Amino acid sequence: MKYGPFVESVRARGLEMGDVVCFPLSVGWFGERGRPRRVSKLQFFYKGGTVNMYARPVEGVTVTVDLDRMVVVDFRDRMVMPVPKAEGTDYRSTEEKEEEEEEIPGPGSRGISIEGHVVRWANWDFHVSFDARAGLVLSLASVADPERDESRLVLYKGHVSELFVPYMDPSEEWYYRTYLDAGEWGFGVSSLPLKPGADCPANARFMDGFYAGRDGMPVRVENVFCVFQRYAGDVSWRHTEIIIPGRVIREVRPEVSLVVRSVAVAGNYDYIVDYEFMQSGTIKVQVGLTGIVEMKASEHTHTNQVSQDIHGTLIAENTIATYHDHFITYYLDLDIDGQRNSFVKAKMKTVRLGSDSDGSSPRKSYWTVERETAKTEAEGMVSMSPAEPSELMLVNPNKKTKMGNVVGYRLIPKSAPTISLLSDDDYPQIRAGWTKNQVWVTAYDPSQRWAGGMYADQSQGDDNLVAWSRRNRSIENTDIVLWYTVGFHHIPCQEDFPVMPTLNGGFELRQTNFFERNILLKTPLPSVESDSCSSGRQSQNIIIG
Amino acid sequence: MKYGPFVESVRARGLEMGDVVCFPLSVGWFGERGRPRRVSKLQFFYKGGTVNMYARPVEGVTVTVDLDRMVVVDFRDRMVMPVPKAEGTDYRSTEEKEEEEEEIPGPGSRGISIEGHVVRWANWDFHVSFDARAGLVLSLASVADPERDESRLVLYKGHVSELFVPYMDPSEEWYYRTYLDAGEWGFGVSSLPLKPGADCPANARFMDGFYAGRDGMPVRVENVFCVFQRYAGDVSWRHTEIIIPGRVIREVRPEVSLVVRSVAVAGNYDYIVDYEFMQSGTIKVQVGLTGIVEMKASEHTHTNQVSQDIHGTLIAENTIATYHDHFITYYLDLDIDGQRNSFVKAKMKTVRLGSDSDGSSPRKSYWTVERETAKTEAEGMVSMSPAEPSELMLVNPNKKTKMGNVVGYRLIPKSAPTISLLSDDDYPQIRAGWTKNQVWVTAYDPSQRWAGGMYADQSQGDDNLVAWSRRNRSIENTDIVLWYTVGFHHIPCQEDFPVMPTLNGGFELRQTNFFERNILLKTPLPSVESDSCSSGRQSQNIIIG
Repeated sequence: MKYGPFVESVRARGLEMGDVVCFPLSVGWFGERGRPRRVSKLQFFYKGGTVNMYARPVEGVTVTVDLDRMVVVDFRDRMVMPVPKAEGTDYRSTEEKEEEEEEIPGPGSRGISIEGHVVRWANWDFHVSFDARAGLVLSLASVADPERDESRLVLYKGHVSELFVPYMDPSEEWYYRTYLDAGEWGFGVSSLPLKPGADCPANARFMDGFYAGRDGMPVRVENVFCVFQRYAGDVSWRHTEIIIPGRVIREVRPEVSLVVRSVAVAGNYDYIVDYEFMQSGTIKVQVGLTGIVEMKASEHTHTNQVSQDIHGTLIAENTIATYHDHFITYYLDLDIDGQRNSFVKAKMKTVRLGSDSDGSSPRKSYWTVERETAKTEAEGMVSMSPAEPSELMLVNPNKKTKMGNVVGYRLIPKSAPTISLLSDDDYPQIRAGWTKNQVWVTAYDPSQRWAGGMYADQSQGDDNLVAWSRRNRSIENTDIVLWYTVGFHHIPCQEDFPVMPTLNGGFELRQTNFFERNILLKTPLPSVESDSCSSGRQSQNIIIG
Repeated sequence: MKYGPFVESVRARGLEMGDVVCFPLSVGWFGERGRPRRVSKLQFFYKGGTVNMYARPVEGVTVTVDLDRMVVVDFRDRMVMPVPKAEGTDYRSTEEKEEEEEEIPGPGSRGISIEGHVVRWANWDFHVSFDARAGLVLSLASVADPERDESRLVLYKGHVSELFVPYMDPSEEWYYRTYLDAGEWGFGVSSLPLKPGADCPANARFMDGFYAGRDGMPVRVENVFCVFQRYAGDVSWRHTEIIIPGRVIREVRPEVSLVVRSVAVAGNYDYIVDYEFMQSGTIKVQVGLTGIVEMKASEHTHTNQVSQDIHGTLIAENTIATYHDHFITYYLDLDIDGQRNSFVKAKMKTVRLGSDSDGSSPRKSYWTVERETAKTEAEGMVSMSPAEPSELMLVNPNKKTKMGNVVGYRLIPKSAPTISLLSDDDYPQIRAGWTKNQVWVTAYDPSQRWAGGMYADQSQGDDNLVAWSRRNRSIENTDIVLWYTVGFHHIPCQEDFPVMPTLNGGFELRQTNFFERNILLKTPLPSVESDSCSSGRQSQNIIIG
């Protein structure tokens, strides 16, 4: 801080030396020969008006220090850039306040308002309804923007559209077990009452569902949904700052979210369907697989008797649990801040700095982002691969942030992306052809909600997501639907017997330049009292149309 | 149930008609021409001695029913197989008990025993220690086997081994920002005190850590770990059974787990490191990314001023958040039921039933499992791909279940598998070369704990995971180490400013034929009183060596 040229550089920028913070960085190895360097490159930040000095970089100045001799061995002041302003960079709730324990809302329901079909909680509001085929249907999910003092639409409608569950035994009794659980059985009809205190916390809010029975009379499913506030001990954001001399700043916010759940039981198998609304703006979607695996009787009582492919695992005496897949396809009619949206692939591409570069960088490569807006449905299909990553976003090309970024939400898988391994010409695969990609984007058509087609059970693949997409409609700046398939290859194991511990998968839809900034700083914790001590259960039965 | 040939088949098997349950299945389409069939194929189960009739299939009998005419149109009794026994198939806690609300343990610490460095909770025990380089180190994690009345070793030692965080701006001030946070900075030295009631529930148990400071004196980090019981409203397993005429069986168990947490703050960035012990035997490993993104000053105040690659996102006025990656590499010295283990890839391979098959199946394909045991380290590297899936297992080839399955644990990613996009000849990539695969398996060598090598900061790639693996040592039936890298490509967005909402990734290690059956049926819920009403915090400071 006393090195003349550096003091000069600070003065030339009109900054106060007392507010400059020094950040020593490791330098790595970039092909230098000889004895390893023990040097650090210092970068500088400005803490004037903020404790978040990382937001106020003093760009262009690099001081290299020899850590053995503790002397400056190189000084570079390459350019002068404006120091970004302090305003809006502080992340503390109030400056310099005393540390005090905040009350964290317990699990429960007191912060949840349900009027008719509309659920309101914290900064979210949405509509919940029940469908015989889809089960739980969310619509008009909107999040409050604290800067604009208005609610902004994210999800026009979302639900499970289809499940494809093919078994891998070609024998007479098993070859046809290639279920489309929503289209053939009804994922809503399969949704059964939740047990308070077990399927959901005892003090969750429960709702009933109704559908038209085979005789036309209403069938009531009691407690078919539950809604509860979650605090799982997690952190919505945090930072501890120790680099400002003489001070320690520690700001941590607990993660309190809202879960909407239903459970569908497809015969032997149970699917726990969760939508979790985060105060950050994120919607987490999770499916839990549990229940009982499909089993086949066998003469075998030990694996050493097995001499050919038994198409499964010998999980108990005389019992084979057959190999199978689960593909859960979600219909996600996102309307990001309005109806006209586009699908953008932000592809990460390696740029080589080879012998043809100007040699100014010791690096030989980096990645950058090439944004491609999908024009038609053919460009809306994505098969994810670690070697060709892209951030997949639904954006509203007509809306931009103040900085000029297009507003959007991105899709983040929370389990390994999976595709069907059946051959394309196999009949079940013809019916469920979309399971060869994880992602499809289609033009909105109110008749196209069921990935397997209207009549999935005897479908020949001529009315499904693949068939519709062949029309290759425009999907740019129009009303579009995102379809995402969460897949599992299931090689059963003995621990799946006699009932299977829950296995989770899913994805999240995360705000991406939708807001001007992290809204958690301006969103107060839900103003609810802790009711986790209450053993009483609150149930509100409402009629769902 | 009155169809003569069927009654005959049941009698021939010596079964009681009254205990036969009929299960109507959908049939799909397998190339039939003409009018769609409205038929169902019936399969049969036997509920004698159990409510889990799925475990007692009456194999070989298929009845096809025309659903329009409601008549049997086809009957096949192809073979007689033993009906698997009823014993051990029931999943109810007690038969036919009255439904009553069970008390779910609240979050807290009363069920947790900590003696010295040893933590005991429910069916788990393990050792926790602190390391200046790794931070939180788990060892000797063992799970009780309720059938054997003994504890069985799973994880000999596990911790974060290295982090690779390369930024994607090749300019003079940024090209070298390619941190190895554990090797260069010390992930333990970067671990900071947790805030009770915010970083962890207020009534968690907290522990201190100590390390040797630069002057040789012990440095105490207060509350560097926390341990707490979690109930997040989730379900460890469930099933509702409605197919048994006149009965509804609903069994649901809440998920109560134990979380061990520490937080490392690498300058601007915060990493929340969680290990979650599930009563099923599963260990979930999660890392949460939060804190402050690295920012660069810029003359731009709007994206329409940008005419060339700015290597990041304009997230605020004059502020670019630079593109970067996070690769968190875990050292997992699993000792599955003993020291000598093997690495098995259970590859799922499509089998085609083409014109060369006997035509007995209408299916054209299925997948089956080809198990490959990795012989040497070259076979221990795996780059995950949806097109070539395999279940990755560490097994003990010397231990088998009663059924003859080899005991093991498998690796399940909970975020999309990711690889580094830097070119192989780029210097940071030479230092962190292992980030081109997600999985490595090496022979145990006590000197090989740090993926980036002992001296990571100036490494030239000659002492790291890649270099060691080039020796191609045997990894079959010996003491081996699994290395898994959780990766993130981070294109910052405005919501990451001024502080980033937590983004999670991770994996789970899940029992796979390790136990004879699902142990959750025999594992009682932790016998703790709910202490979620308590606002007092319990802190125990123990010295961690």
